[in-house]
Amino acid sequence: MADANVVEANDGTISVASAFAAHQQVVQDRDHKFLTEAVGEAYKGVECGDGGPFGAVVVRNDEIVVSCHNMVLKNTDPTAHAEVTAIREACKKLNQIELADCEIYASCEPCPMCFGAIHLSRLKRLVYGAKAEAAIAIGFDDFIADALRGTAYYQKAHLEIKKADEPCGAGEDSSMSLIRSCGFSNHLLLLVDKSTCRPMSSLRPKLIV
Amino acid sequence: MADANVVEANDGTISVASAFAAHQQVVQDRDHKFLTEAVGEAYKGVECGDGGPFGAVVVRNDEIVVSCHNMVLKNTDPTAHAEVTAIREACKKLNQIELADCEIYASCEPCPMCFGAIHLSRLKRLVYGAKAEAAIAIGFDDFIADALRGTAYYQKAHLEIKKADEPCGAGEDSSMSLIRSCGFSNHLLLLVDKSTCRPMSSLRPKLIV
Repeated sequence: MADANVVEANDGTISVASAFAAHQQVVQDRDHKFLTEAVGEAYKGVECGDGGPFGAVVVRNDEIVVSCHNMVLKNTDPTAHAEVTAIREACKKLNQIELADCEIYASCEPCPMCFGAIHLSRLKRLVYGAKAEAAIAIGFDDFIADALRGTAYYQKAHLEIKKADEPCGAGEDSSMSLIRSCGFSNHLLLLVDKSTCRPMSSLRPKLIV
Repeated sequence: MADANVVEANDGTISVASAFAAHQQVVQDRDHKFLTEAVGEAYKGVECGDGGPFGAVVVRNDEIVVSCHNMVLKNTDPTAHAEVTAIREACKKLNQIELADCEIYASCEPCPMCFGAIHLSRLKRLVYGAKAEAAIAIGFDDFIADALRGTAYYQKAHLEIKKADEPCGAGEDSSMSLIRSCGFSNHLLLLVDKSTCRPMSSLRPKLIV
């Protein structure tokens, strides 16, 4: 065989290399199928005027769970990007707050908000089409690429950011002092179960500011 | 007057320095009032088991527009953090997708998803209470601080990220090639009005993959 990627075995069995190449092709075809669906959603969203030209699809076990597009205009909601919308819909449909057994296909590289949502929902795989620069080229916010490339978009935001002032008692653990300064008592924070976020006690926490 | 911050004027008028100090105090008191409201929301959310111990308040012209807490558990929605929820509710209430005339008060330093949402909604000011480390200390995801401190959380995500392969024609602008490779034709992207996200033409864009 002429293909340099394939190693022939003398006994005629499929070599590891060719099996790997075949597997890669299957993955490629599968990704193309679902990404095409995400791109189709982007077109659909623009056609009906729901929002920007972005689509996303959540997939579990080779099946599409939800297929969504940007709904910012339709819902008057700046957070209704395609990926966030798809995550919200998928969680609702599957009745779970984590999507660890799912993948997400996005027509474009996710913005930091969407990337955060992808991370928080524990999606196991992200496949995207256009790079963020493509969205920027048509006038979308350049903080998308800044964040993904590590060029400190947080500092670039046209936003006044203020950490509320707090006193810090001498010798006291500064983290706890910070918490207390804004009214988060140890009670509140330490009585919350880390995995469920539910209070571990029926004690009513007291506001201490 | 003994206060070193105050410069006395001979004619008895209020000096710039004292006016500035008084203004600072007013801002401080105002911030404390709204931040206390946000913290109160955090307690409320934990008490009723809606989600994590986080609250956020959107303010316009010294008046609270919405006061929300984390709704992740209640809504089975990993994106329903306090800040995202507050932004969505405020936009709905004010019937606008931008909150450029509003401020947001958050009980804790926003995570990257929420920070992204704050940026996207054009909020003019963010005041937060506890630092992200406080949330991390009780078991919440440490990607919050990573992102805010610029320590590349994107690379740390336990997530396979794949940019779909694309051919790039010789001499062609690579950005446009990338767009096309995933089915975003120039038609789709360039016919979208940048400010409204609406298509500028009734031409039906064609999927070219």
